[in-house]
Amino acid sequence: MQEQEKLDELFMRKALEQAQMACDKGEVPVGAVVVCRERIIARAHNLTELLRDVTAHAEMQAVTAAADSLGGKYLDSCTLYVTLEPCTMCAGALGWAQLGRLVYGASDEKRGFRKYVPDALHPKTEVVAGVLEDECAVLIKDFFKKKR
Amino acid sequence: MQEQEKLDELFMRKALEQAQMACDKGEVPVGAVVVCRERIIARAHNLTELLRDVTAHAEMQAVTAAADSLGGKYLDSCTLYVTLEPCTMCAGALGWAQLGRLVYGASDEKRGFRKYVPDALHPKTEVVAGVLEDECAVLIKDFFKKKR
Repeated sequence: MQEQEKLDELFMRKALEQAQMACDKGEVPVGAVVVCRERIIARAHNLTELLRDVTAHAEMQAVTAAADSLGGKYLDSCTLYVTLEPCTMCAGALGWAQLGRLVYGASDEKRGFRKYVPDALHPKTEVVAGVLEDECAVLIKDFFKKKR
Repeated sequence: MQEQEKLDELFMRKALEQAQMACDKGEVPVGAVVVCRERIIARAHNLTELLRDVTAHAEMQAVTAAADSLGGKYLDSCTLYVTLEPCTMCAGALGWAQLGRLVYGASDEKRGFRKYVPDALHPKTEVVAGVLEDECAVLIKDFFKKKR
């Protein structure tokens, strides 16, 4: 396994920890971390129910927190790891932030941006899909199975 | 002029006041208000520079504030008035919020959602474009003229 792949798995595990925290609160289990120069500068998980706020997706909070940490609004030197493919809203935010690299776990056939608005990201953003895909997807599937 | 048109102009003037407040702070002049049963329940203007946060668009803040005011995350009984056509990110947020009605002033050919992701809103959201269009557009054009 290449060095970058190992790092990607390592950081996706941190995003999965965040997703588990969301799950423990009864939230749709999506977690994210932002990494800059191999250091985590922001961690977040979905809080839409607790905050009663549709904008409180893990990625949105992670973008805000990462910009705060860096003291600037552009994240072109950063990688966002998120357990689920971002939605239209989040992809739009990542586009404005000019994110350097997006790594996500599970695909979201229903709400994922790639189907609806594939050009939402900045043209320079590198995208890697499917890192720890099964683990990320199982969390979501189990959550909705219990809900029914 | 119909009653609804008069109301739409009235509330768009309130959104324009917000846009002017953004302008006075050196922000891209976009303003928004959320109206529920003919009462303004949220007001916001773009603060992306001040907060160094790409997610701080007028609409995003308005959605969060309106949900807070209502005590629930769905805005299906609300109208959002915004001086500029929402971007992909904001349209995605309005979709999640199941907004009842969207009224905007100027179109945004470059970044507006209608060109890129016309289905981002909830299927039931009514859309009215072009209310006080010229006044809304002039604010933006003047801002960018001064920037150059």
